[in-house]
Amino acid sequence: MKTPTATDIYKVHKRIKPFINKTPVLTSSYLNQLTGAKLYFKAENFQKVGAFKYRGATNAVLSLSKTDLKKAVATHSSGNHAAALALAAKKAGTKAYIVMPNNAPPIKKNAVADYDAIITFCEPTLEARETTLQKIIEKTGATFIHPYDNIDVIKGQGTACLELINEIPNLDIIIAPVGGGGLLSGTSIIAKANSIKIIAAEPKNANDAYLSLKTNKLVPSINPNTIADGLLTSLSNLTFTIIKNNVDEIITVTEQQIIDAMRLVWERMKIIIEPSSATVLAVVLANKEQFVTKKVGLIISGGNVDLNNLPF
Amino acid sequence: MKTPTATDIYKVHKRIKPFINKTPVLTSSYLNQLTGAKLYFKAENFQKVGAFKYRGATNAVLSLSKTDLKKAVATHSSGNHAAALALAAKKAGTKAYIVMPNNAPPIKKNAVADYDAIITFCEPTLEARETTLQKIIEKTGATFIHPYDNIDVIKGQGTACLELINEIPNLDIIIAPVGGGGLLSGTSIIAKANSIKIIAAEPKNANDAYLSLKTNKLVPSINPNTIADGLLTSLSNLTFTIIKNNVDEIITVTEQQIIDAMRLVWERMKIIIEPSSATVLAVVLANKEQFVTKKVGLIISGGNVDLNNLPF
Repeated sequence: MKTPTATDIYKVHKRIKPFINKTPVLTSSYLNQLTGAKLYFKAENFQKVGAFKYRGATNAVLSLSKTDLKKAVATHSSGNHAAALALAAKKAGTKAYIVMPNNAPPIKKNAVADYDAIITFCEPTLEARETTLQKIIEKTGATFIHPYDNIDVIKGQGTACLELINEIPNLDIIIAPVGGGGLLSGTSIIAKANSIKIIAAEPKNANDAYLSLKTNKLVPSINPNTIADGLLTSLSNLTFTIIKNNVDEIITVTEQQIIDAMRLVWERMKIIIEPSSATVLAVVLANKEQFVTKKVGLIISGGNVDLNNLPF
Repeated sequence: MKTPTATDIYKVHKRIKPFINKTPVLTSSYLNQLTGAKLYFKAENFQKVGAFKYRGATNAVLSLSKTDLKKAVATHSSGNHAAALALAAKKAGTKAYIVMPNNAPPIKKNAVADYDAIITFCEPTLEARETTLQKIIEKTGATFIHPYDNIDVIKGQGTACLELINEIPNLDIIIAPVGGGGLLSGTSIIAKANSIKIIAAEPKNANDAYLSLKTNKLVPSINPNTIADGLLTSLSNLTFTIIKNNVDEIITVTEQQIIDAMRLVWERMKIIIEPSSATVLAVVLANKEQFVTKKVGLIISGGNVDLNNLPF
């Protein structure tokens, strides 16, 4: 199986740089004191559409042939990837077809609609999503951009880590959240190429990646139930292969640990991060001895939360 | 009455620079599109203690004679000034006595206690606060640092605007919130010295500064009732004099306009700002024609909110 290299990601960074936000790396003297570590937060909540997903979507769109680009792109997603692909398509002057479950929250529908995507609603099952998408693709010739099982998407996601290590050299450890594994794959390739330990953060209630790495075979995510709504999906063969080759450890955290870490970031750092992003700090807070005195990079994946439905 | 000059504020900035955060100036393409203006947010929510108040408190503490510094500083406040003075005193190696009303929310008590201040609780009336403070000062020889009726505090608060115009030249307008007028005084001195129009934002439900400017005499704030809890206080003779001389206009905003603006910043900019800070954006949103095509600097005063008690 062909997997991306660090060199690929460096090249992709040059390509997408004019189109993405160079997000800041933030620190907090309070959290450094609390943990005894030196924490560097790569704040992708300040990325366009409020999440790292814009990097991968942008690269995927820019990787299309002129003919394919002219037709359209398509995906099924109710989350950040849908909004990211919609905006990336809009900026590239093409159409985005997004299949969303009919029970997606209004805030997510609006985010996608704001970027002029053509939304098709379907029953909230994976089967309905895939069938609906297939019909659209047959009709329109749109290219399916999978949220993570896509080599161009993975390369794009890796550029956040690249910017982080360019700005903060000599990190000992990098922690990224894992859902479908696109962000973790890209991040781990850059980390390994720079001899930095790479740890993944996963909700205990959606611990399929943890189990996959432990048993050395792809365990799907079955009925995950976590507030970290960006981390519900299963690894693909592609992301599992990359993660197996690169990731040193996956650490799981409880729902309460995620909520506490999220609250701490909101209160002390004054930034809005989504629950999926809070998993990385939760890992440090629950395992202080492992990180004390270390320079730790944390990938804050996004900041899209429904303010009408907060856990505190 | 002696009032500070822009030169004073430049000097103070050099003095306090090593002790404060140089906060970022943020932009939002979404909000620029929504308003038709070019908005530059000076993000004092990222200042130490989460508010611009740390600038003034730091300068006041650094302005003390060695003898006075050794004794202690004191103030009565339940808000950001209390936390700011507590931390500034701690960093300068002296004690801070803080008088707080016994009904202050636990989150505010904890913030002050975290910085090792000596807290005295009293009945929640201005009289009780002043009497209690007076007793402490008599006993300890502490210097009273008023939250805004203090020339060193005002000079410190002006440094946020100074950093803003150094980073973003050629602003047409600057908007700052007004409560007791410390921030607005310092900001207006810098704005006027640089020929920039200066507008103040005030809650309609606490419109004492608006009425004072209109009637040309100091109108006290009587039973103000606004979510913008940093803007409840009345102007002093000192701040009223400075504001009269410099401020072009005070624009009031409703509670709903404040809440809507706050929510917009949280959702779109992914930063936590407190209601007092949201008044400045609320002014732009409610008066778009006045700001369209203009380069507008907005002083975001702080980010201390009680997450258990949000207006949405």
